[in-house]
Amino acid sequence: MKKIINQPENVLDEMLNGLVYTNDKLIERVGESGIILNKNLKKGKVGLVSGGGSGHEPAHAGFVGQGMLDAAVCGPVFTSPTPDQVFEAIQAADQGAGVLLIIKNYSGDVMNFEMAKDLAEMEDIEVETIIVDDDIAVEDSTYTAGKRGVAGTVLVHKILGAAADKGASLAEVKAIADKIVPNIKTLGVALTGATVPEVGHAGFTLAEDEIEFGVGIHGEPGYRKAKIAPSKELAKEIVEKLKGQFNWAKGDKYGVLVNGLGGTPLMEQFVFMNDVKALLEEEGLVIEFKKAGDYMTAIDMQGLSLTMVHLEEDAWLENLDYNVTTIAW
Amino acid sequence: MKKIINQPENVLDEMLNGLVYTNDKLIERVGESGIILNKNLKKGKVGLVSGGGSGHEPAHAGFVGQGMLDAAVCGPVFTSPTPDQVFEAIQAADQGAGVLLIIKNYSGDVMNFEMAKDLAEMEDIEVETIIVDDDIAVEDSTYTAGKRGVAGTVLVHKILGAAADKGASLAEVKAIADKIVPNIKTLGVALTGATVPEVGHAGFTLAEDEIEFGVGIHGEPGYRKAKIAPSKELAKEIVEKLKGQFNWAKGDKYGVLVNGLGGTPLMEQFVFMNDVKALLEEEGLVIEFKKAGDYMTAIDMQGLSLTMVHLEEDAWLENLDYNVTTIAW
Repeated sequence: MKKIINQPENVLDEMLNGLVYTNDKLIERVGESGIILNKNLKKGKVGLVSGGGSGHEPAHAGFVGQGMLDAAVCGPVFTSPTPDQVFEAIQAADQGAGVLLIIKNYSGDVMNFEMAKDLAEMEDIEVETIIVDDDIAVEDSTYTAGKRGVAGTVLVHKILGAAADKGASLAEVKAIADKIVPNIKTLGVALTGATVPEVGHAGFTLAEDEIEFGVGIHGEPGYRKAKIAPSKELAKEIVEKLKGQFNWAKGDKYGVLVNGLGGTPLMEQFVFMNDVKALLEEEGLVIEFKKAGDYMTAIDMQGLSLTMVHLEEDAWLENLDYNVTTIAW
Repeated sequence: MKKIINQPENVLDEMLNGLVYTNDKLIERVGESGIILNKNLKKGKVGLVSGGGSGHEPAHAGFVGQGMLDAAVCGPVFTSPTPDQVFEAIQAADQGAGVLLIIKNYSGDVMNFEMAKDLAEMEDIEVETIIVDDDIAVEDSTYTAGKRGVAGTVLVHKILGAAADKGASLAEVKAIADKIVPNIKTLGVALTGATVPEVGHAGFTLAEDEIEFGVGIHGEPGYRKAKIAPSKELAKEIVEKLKGQFNWAKGDKYGVLVNGLGGTPLMEQFVFMNDVKALLEEEGLVIEFKKAGDYMTAIDMQGLSLTMVHLEEDAWLENLDYNVTTIAW
């Protein structure tokens, strides 16, 4: 393992300190915890809290700020934060209008965030939850019942973040959440595994000329290994799988997010986006929102994912375009 | 070579198309050229043009936008753009107040940008140039006489971009440029080489446990190979070398940029930043500006660089904090 770190067991603590130091006008760390809090909380606004295991930087702390999240709970690398930590984040994020928890669909996260909800309700904080399960690769997985939550979660942060910032109530934010999540779908392809510092070697390996479709952001198995192929062909497979889920029609409005998994340069992400563009034009879709970069990574994994969001309502596009003050959007 | 691309010879064209498609509200491509232009040019403002070979994404096209660059000229991967292309970029960026060319110190770039300046002056466009040579690693290098230009160039874009946006004249922008460049210094460390798509293999290789200090952003040799060491130790070597160049005193004001080289996750960049913080606190410096992320990459190289800028004048800090509308700042 060749990484720029110190003791592997200190990575989380040192990373959070470095993150907060770099962005100390915008965010703060709550004590020694894994909670990253917006420094400029807005009284009376619905609080948005997300999080999960670390190793997905810039998610989720990079999306804390005005117009997105109020707090991110950062567990150890690839490990859920405890219910107590999530509860503390809820308390910190609550500005009197209740809190929505945005949870990626991993069994540990779901359990611990739900327990935190119960703890908060005992303290009379109103809490709602939304579970994001955008990864269409496989049904059930190493750490998941149902579908996994991956890069589409960032679009959920963005759309709900704008709604909350504009003054929507907890019930209204929750209603938008319930509507958008089924309209967001993602599929990825991995070129390499990811190396958790405390493990010291990649979670899985692929041959020099091998890729795997549908790998999860913790290295969970995908649905097919294949020989590396031109970007056009990777894009074609991914777009066709998404098409199968969306059943779109000509003229439908969509947004797209090409998300690098941590070790893939922008060069490749933009080449891939160019291929996606051509395929979606052939389909006759109207692409109203586009973004590329590293948003939900798997530490140092090489590869990328494509997220599409069906923009059924104009307000969702407005919210995607809404100005925010965050580190990483 | 395992990359998400199509034909290696088409990478530049496809990447630029993907980049512009993703950000079509902000930037446009001039014809089929490598010129990326701000869509919202400001009449009467000094034009700022930078560029060079591609492979450093998001530099430089990612910094085109209000408050930073007006145009970026993107040559082939690791290859200077032609004088004609730079000349065309000057013409496109000129809004009647002249144009400043921000050139990284590589012989090909310097020659071609200077020739473009001559061409522009024959068309009565007033042009000034500034050569950035912030890399303190070595004197003279594979493609450079003197010191190389690396990540500090992005701070030059930012400081001059704000000045130009606020209405400074060409002579004033040039005067700031001449003052800031000697106050910006960078040193990096590489964990792996970078693979140019048309070459198909890394430009140099390091052993599994080996790193190299001072490698250039095209893989030019550094000043020392070493065994991988904890982040603290890498930070110490780099900060000490920078100290030797700056000769700082307690209380001096600085800005820092930790720059990922393309294949290094944010996790490592933040751990490193945390170590840099401790060292600079020991030195008694006042760190007024901090930033971490991928700004000037070497394709897929693993590693990072540390840039420091001595903030001799308060206006430079104001300009670093000035609001911009770009893809990547």
